[in-house]
Amino acid sequence: MIVSMQRHERIYELKKSVFEANLELVKQGLVIYTWGNVSGIDRESGLVVIKPSGVDYDKMTVEDMVVISLDGEIVEGRMKPSSDAPTHLALYRKYDKIKSVVHTHSEWATSWAQSGRDIPCYGTTHADYFYGNIPCTRALSDDEINGEYELNTGFVIIETLKEGQIEPMEIPGIIIFNHGPFSWGRNPLDAVHNAKVMEEVGKMAYRSEKLNPELKRVNQVLLDKHYLRKHGKNAYYGQTK
Amino acid sequence: MIVSMQRHERIYELKKSVFEANLELVKQGLVIYTWGNVSGIDRESGLVVIKPSGVDYDKMTVEDMVVISLDGEIVEGRMKPSSDAPTHLALYRKYDKIKSVVHTHSEWATSWAQSGRDIPCYGTTHADYFYGNIPCTRALSDDEINGEYELNTGFVIIETLKEGQIEPMEIPGIIIFNHGPFSWGRNPLDAVHNAKVMEEVGKMAYRSEKLNPELKRVNQVLLDKHYLRKHGKNAYYGQTK
Amino acid sequence: MIVSMQRHERIYELKKSVFEANLELVKQGLVIYTWGNVSGIDRESGLVVIKPSGVDYDKMTVEDMVVISLDGEIVEGRMKPSSDAPTHLALYRKYDKIKSVVHTHSEWATSWAQSGRDIPCYGTTHADYFYGNIPCTRALSDDEINGEYELNTGFVIIETLKEGQIEPMEIPGIIIFNHGPFSWGRNPLDAVHNAKVMEEVGKMAYRSEKLNPELKRVNQVLLDKHYLRKHGKNAYYGQTK
Amino acid sequence: MIVSMQRHERIYELKKSVFEANLELVKQGLVIYTWGNVSGIDRESGLVVIKPSGVDYDKMTVEDMVVISLDGEIVEGRMKPSSDAPTHLALYRKYDKIKSVVHTHSEWATSWAQSGRDIPCYGTTHADYFYGNIPCTRALSDDEINGEYELNTGFVIIETLKEGQIEPMEIPGIIIFNHGPFSWGRNPLDAVHNAKVMEEVGKMAYRSEKLNPELKRVNQVLLDKHYLRKHGKNAYYGQTK
Repeated sequence: MIVSMQRHERIYELKKSVFEANLELVKQGLVIYTWGNVSGIDRESGLVVIKPSGVDYDKMTVEDMVVISLDGEIVEGRMKPSSDAPTHLALYRKYDKIKSVVHTHSEWATSWAQSGRDIPCYGTTHADYFYGNIPCTRALSDDEINGEYELNTGFVIIETLKEGQIEPMEIPGIIIFNHGPFSWGRNPLDAVHNAKVMEEVGKMAYRSEKLNPELKRVNQVLLDKHYLRKHGKNAYYGQTK
Repeated sequence: MIVSMQRHERIYELKKSVFEANLELVKQGLVIYTWGNVSGIDRESGLVVIKPSGVDYDKMTVEDMVVISLDGEIVEGRMKPSSDAPTHLALYRKYDKIKSVVHTHSEWATSWAQSGRDIPCYGTTHADYFYGNIPCTRALSDDEINGEYELNTGFVIIETLKEGQIEPMEIPGIIIFNHGPFSWGRNPLDAVHNAKVMEEVGKMAYRSEKLNPELKRVNQVLLDKHYLRKHGKNAYYGQTK
Repeated sequence: MIVSMQRHERIYELKKSVFEANLELVKQGLVIYTWGNVSGIDRESGLVVIKPSGVDYDKMTVEDMVVISLDGEIVEGRMKPSSDAPTHLALYRKYDKIKSVVHTHSEWATSWAQSGRDIPCYGTTHADYFYGNIPCTRALSDDEINGEYELNTGFVIIETLKEGQIEPMEIPGIIIFNHGPFSWGRNPLDAVHNAKVMEEVGKMAYRSEKLNPELKRVNQVLLDKHYLRKHGKNAYYGQTK
Repeated sequence: MIVSMQRHERIYELKKSVFEANLELVKQGLVIYTWGNVSGIDRESGLVVIKPSGVDYDKMTVEDMVVISLDGEIVEGRMKPSSDAPTHLALYRKYDKIKSVVHTHSEWATSWAQSGRDIPCYGTTHADYFYGNIPCTRALSDDEINGEYELNTGFVIIETLKEGQIEPMEIPGIIIFNHGPFSWGRNPLDAVHNAKVMEEVGKMAYRSEKLNPELKRVNQVLLDKHYLRKHGKNAYYGQTK
């Protein structure tokens, strides 16, 4: 009974943070209309909270958030979950460390996604968050599109992350060819933060290339320095936690 | 008598929604000054409500909306209708399903219109709303310009939609060479929504091409998947209506 | 006595409209810091009201506006007039129809000015306001720069307008090579409006060229149609005045 | 005792102005999240006030500002100073005239920094503030990165300013290859002002080059004219101080 109560409270807190992170997408200029969604997972129960499908951000309430199982069954909620839910779930099932997933059609990351190219790491802004290029997936095959499309989108992300050889928390986002970005993080606001970073570094990478078509990505030493001063075991950026 | 009353009420509701959609153009960053107009039609009476010509959005009231017949006769209103009214009317006369028409000089769609090129479908954001490229009309001939220019603009839209071979609700917008975008929809806010989508996909298409000059439009399978999951008879995006 | 009173009132009204037009520059996103100035002339008295030099827009009051004669003598005001005043005055002395002058460093018009190229008329948005390309001046000679620089800037504008062969009200703005835009109009808000139009058409012309490097300016028939439907003697755009 | 009191007051005023300048970074659109920092120096005591590391701008208070010595010792404050502090300090130690230092990852200056190119002086907007191109440093060597990275960043700025042959107040900013901009000034708001100018002139230089790939920087005569009319001993821009 107590456990159940705690779980109920945890899910409610998760609903609130998923709801707030969805609104943060709007505030950060990453979505218009219904062009994005955030989910979060309660690892203890395996329950996922996700934005309902096709609902406007300015009419949405905490109560509209949909609770689903890792298999996609609706556990709680009056509405259908985001049609992208199977992509989110594939990531949660594969990677234990991912606690939240974000999908948007933000303008710069989507422009890169449509171009079919990885976003190259051209500077320290990028290296502070992503330990290398932001990869672009291959195109889905016709069968993958005609089959379980949203699930296959999840699989192609996992394939691009080389089936776990790339640590997803070190490359906390990816772009889907012809589509747009997915990002993830330790919690919903962190995943939105990574979505915003992808947008900003995508914008600057575009311009840097145009200014210098011969440009090369930053070397490994600078990449290590910046990524590890924020994320390594000897990190010295920010306040001691 | 009752019928007349109902018609009066319907026209008043239409005036309000046309007025609000005109303001939505401003809110969505699609117009400055008087650079755009929205109209809507009441199919039962065949009456069209349209923005008055050259009136600033911040001084406009619901009462300023002009009611005209499908032939362009002023039925109600103190002001002249938008000078683009003949273009709107040509579309209403040709296509029964069009309930609202929008014209703007929004920056990205107009940049494409000036370039004389179709906006290619490079991704799912585009495919979610437009079932293929957004076509650009041919240039009007000198005679068409010197003649009934705004009416001929309507005719060249219809010509570009291949005289009905393209279903206008599947390609709910077009760009006029040297001029700018027209869009349409099931109601005034829907037509403005489509105008905004043209702007966003035009912006991203520009950048995707610059990132990858070899870029090709999305294949038919992906186009079908995205367009039909939102608009087909088996659509599964959004909430059940 | 009555005449003097009327003049006093006219100058006060002019101060207010010049002040408000300076703030409109900020509102329209055409200036940051002190990067722009508006002046207006009272043709009856020949007095010019202009923004003081180097004063922040958010601290400026109506009373800070400086009144100068057409020769540049300070007639009223505690502050120095804008250092660009001699350019404004050269235009007022040459062209009777100009009632207000605006100078900014707005981002798109300045980018074109720095490039040394005319802004080509690629579409109807441009043709609605400018009866042809927006010309870019030649570079000033070293002597012109080292001499009365701001006055010579006025002279090079007049030279570019072909000493009156171009009607300045039909081309209500110009860009100075290596510098930025000047625009003018029938009153201060009209001159600011033209500055905003230059910015918007400069932005869209840039993008249209990038989308289609072979692009040509609009033909004369379309230019005539759009310019004259708003400005010709048979103009039919807007409400009857 | 009185001296100590005065110093205490001076440091408190400096904290306030450093705090306000950090918020001005946000207001001017130069930073998101924690992507920037401002410091200021009290030359009399040699104490430096700087933003704490990794703290969000909207949660920060005046009291959070950290006071450090020119050697980097924390003199006052509960938090760690910005991890970029050694770069700021290197500039204060080398150049007496610098009273404030600003670092951001602002989008246009960072795009140039990532490209490895100086921002060329293409117009008078640039020449009004920077007496020539805005230099880009060389890349740091692997040893410099692996060693005292932030300190070495300061050294490479000084090297790029040619060890004092360039007067830093005449070129009040620089871009670090692969990284982003640093600027400085007579006080915190002045240094932020220079950061904003770098952003604006970087944006316009990018576009001017794209409009005219043959473009050359402004000649020395125009550069002298504009820089010196604002900053020379015979400056005539603005109000008499």
